[in-house]
Amino acid sequence: MSVNILFAADQADWPDYEIPLREALTTEGLEFDLRTTFDPQVVDYIVYAPSSDVQDFTPYTRLKAVLNLWAGVEGVAGNQTLNVPLARMVDHGLTQGMVEWVTGHVLRHHLGMDAHIVNPAHEWALGAPPLAEDRPVTILGYGALGTACGEALRTLGFPVTGWSRRPGDTPGINRLHGSDGFTKALETAAILVLLLPLTIDTENLIDADALARLPKGAVIINPGRGGLIDDAALIAALDEGHISHATLDVFRVEPLPADDPYWAHPKVTVTPHIASETRPKTAARTIAQNIRRAEDGLPLNHLVDRDRGY
Amino acid sequence: MSVNILFAADQADWPDYEIPLREALTTEGLEFDLRTTFDPQVVDYIVYAPSSDVQDFTPYTRLKAVLNLWAGVEGVAGNQTLNVPLARMVDHGLTQGMVEWVTGHVLRHHLGMDAHIVNPAHEWALGAPPLAEDRPVTILGYGALGTACGEALRTLGFPVTGWSRRPGDTPGINRLHGSDGFTKALETAAILVLLLPLTIDTENLIDADALARLPKGAVIINPGRGGLIDDAALIAALDEGHISHATLDVFRVEPLPADDPYWAHPKVTVTPHIASETRPKTAARTIAQNIRRAEDGLPLNHLVDRDRGY
Ligand SMILES: NC(=O)c1ccc[n+]([C@@H]2O[C@H](COP(=O)([O-])OP(=O)(O)OC[C@H]3O[C@@H](n4cnc5c(N)ncnc54)[C@H](OP(=O)(O)O)[C@@H]3O)[C@@H](O)[C@H]2O)c1
Ligand SMILES: NC(=O)c1ccc[n+]([C@@H]2O[C@H](COP(=O)([O-])OP(=O)(O)OC[C@H]3O[C@@H](n4cnc5c(N)ncnc54)[C@H](OP(=O)(O)O)[C@@H]3O)[C@@H](O)[C@H]2O)c1
Repeated sequence: MSVNILFAADQADWPDYEIPLREALTTEGLEFDLRTTFDPQVVDYIVYAPSSDVQDFTPYTRLKAVLNLWAGVEGVAGNQTLNVPLARMVDHGLTQGMVEWVTGHVLRHHLGMDAHIVNPAHEWALGAPPLAEDRPVTILGYGALGTACGEALRTLGFPVTGWSRRPGDTPGINRLHGSDGFTKALETAAILVLLLPLTIDTENLIDADALARLPKGAVIINPGRGGLIDDAALIAALDEGHISHATLDVFRVEPLPADDPYWAHPKVTVTPHIASETRPKTAARTIAQNIRRAEDGLPLNHLVDRDRGY
Repeated sequence: MSVNILFAADQADWPDYEIPLREALTTEGLEFDLRTTFDPQVVDYIVYAPSSDVQDFTPYTRLKAVLNLWAGVEGVAGNQTLNVPLARMVDHGLTQGMVEWVTGHVLRHHLGMDAHIVNPAHEWALGAPPLAEDRPVTILGYGALGTACGEALRTLGFPVTGWSRRPGDTPGINRLHGSDGFTKALETAAILVLLLPLTIDTENLIDADALARLPKGAVIINPGRGGLIDDAALIAALDEGHISHATLDVFRVEPLPADDPYWAHPKVTVTPHIASETRPKTAARTIAQNIRRAEDGLPLNHLVDRDRGY
């Protein structure tokens, strides 16, 4: 039996995704009709981005599942009109890109590269940085992406603490959870990396109190979501010198507005939500495999828990 | 029998090395007298830096071996007055520091970080970089440091080519050698890392011809020795746009003179010979173990081949 699959993501992405999706669906042995428009009543699956025009799922009466193209689902997890399983994206390219971006920026701050990249006085300042083994890194959110980044940093010699909602056990990683764990995770962090989803529990988690718990001179790297940080509190902590630098990839409003104080702040680096990107070829496989599972009556991989919000 | 050990390195380093050396020598069960001055005829071992006052070894008639504090031996390997074994430094801290510096700068160029670190127009330019698996890195010089850096880069997903004098076989690494291998190593390098010693064979190896073999837009990272590069040829290749950037840690003259064109070149990053540093605690162990070996009649570890020059 053939399934109807609606591509309801940014239409600019359609040319990149159409062929990989067709190939991956064929590889899974599915008969399908894949299009960017359908009569809602006949749609079986939606390949989705929260920025899509589809915000009311009520007319999709035959819908079996929604497959999100991105890792973050805060724009759809709370949608009350959605009553079928929702899967988030876990993709080799997405994970790998995040590992490269996080590792690169951790090393950049660890090595103090900026002082060499921008050195107008041509200062030859001797003194090598400490070794990674003396620079503890904390990752808040130790899921698919946090784990992959933690592993890469541990392999390079950094002592890594990973904080999550539920307890975890990972060889070579200092795993913490809950609110006691949160305090400890902050107190030891020379570099703090945010890889949490944005939920009701994580919004503004990095507020003035949390920032005050970090050691003086700590660096913050945020490739998670803008809403995790209380922006005014971060700017105050940077201005006081308690936090030495923030490298931010995600913001409450994107693109970051021209008048946002982050742009001109000397202790802030803005990257334009490029930490990681779903790659069509590998992501198409994740989606096709999940549709195959649904057709076979198996639970979806990477299923979102709508109550938790991620 | 007690041995007399002369510390003939930069005297500014003595306070950092004295205690670690005493501890490591004691751990090896050696009886010793360790000092910064001795009557030359009574010295058994010299802990050495090529910048030391000791340039004529003739008066050291009882000398058994010279233990270099640094990895580079170009300042002593050719010394005709030296007739006893010479060991170069291989040290956990030295290797680890180099891995961090090389990995950090490879990721910096791979991710195009500089455009975000210095972004006066506040441009929000979308588009994630390619993945590491699509960015081949070549390391010229695949010895102690090259191997460690190659392994770290391979683990992060970069395709790594390693070029050495003799053939080698390393799982997961494209190993090349000789002059045919040199051409291939250059032709595939999106990022080129120099980790060769400076010898009669490697001086000016990166000349106009070699630069022309690199793909357009290649990046050069040099933590090896300044003399490996023909500076005028590199500047010409940067100005033409054939090479997109050079990050240089080592120079023919150090500190880099104020009027050196590298300082002001917009496509050059200067770091002040900080890629890696011998760390007293671990290096002291390497030295003490080598003195122990010599006393036991065993060949030194990390012995320099004076004919090869490294
Ligand atoms: N900047 C970019 O380009 C980019 C790209 C992709 C993703 N992202 C962001 O990265 C986030 C993480 O992605 P992922 O794939 O790693 O998600 P994931 O696998 O669902 O992992 C989320 C982690 O956060 C933890 N967590 C959630 N709520 C928490 C709470 N209240 N307290 C403590 N820990 C909590 C989870 O704990 P448990 O393990 O206990 O469940 C889990 O460890 C995404 O949600 C997205 O916002 C950004
Ligand atoms: N910037 C810094 O802070 C810093 C710190 C430490 C070291 N360094 C530099 O790094 C260099 C490498 O150190 P290391 O400990 O890795 O040395 P190493 O173990 O002796 O390795 C040297 C490598 O270069 C290769 N090589 C030498 N001559 C060659 C030639 N003519 N053609 C092709 N390959 C050649 C060797 O080939 P084989 O394997 O065939 O012998 C070997 O693979 C040092 O000499 C020093 O100059 C810089």
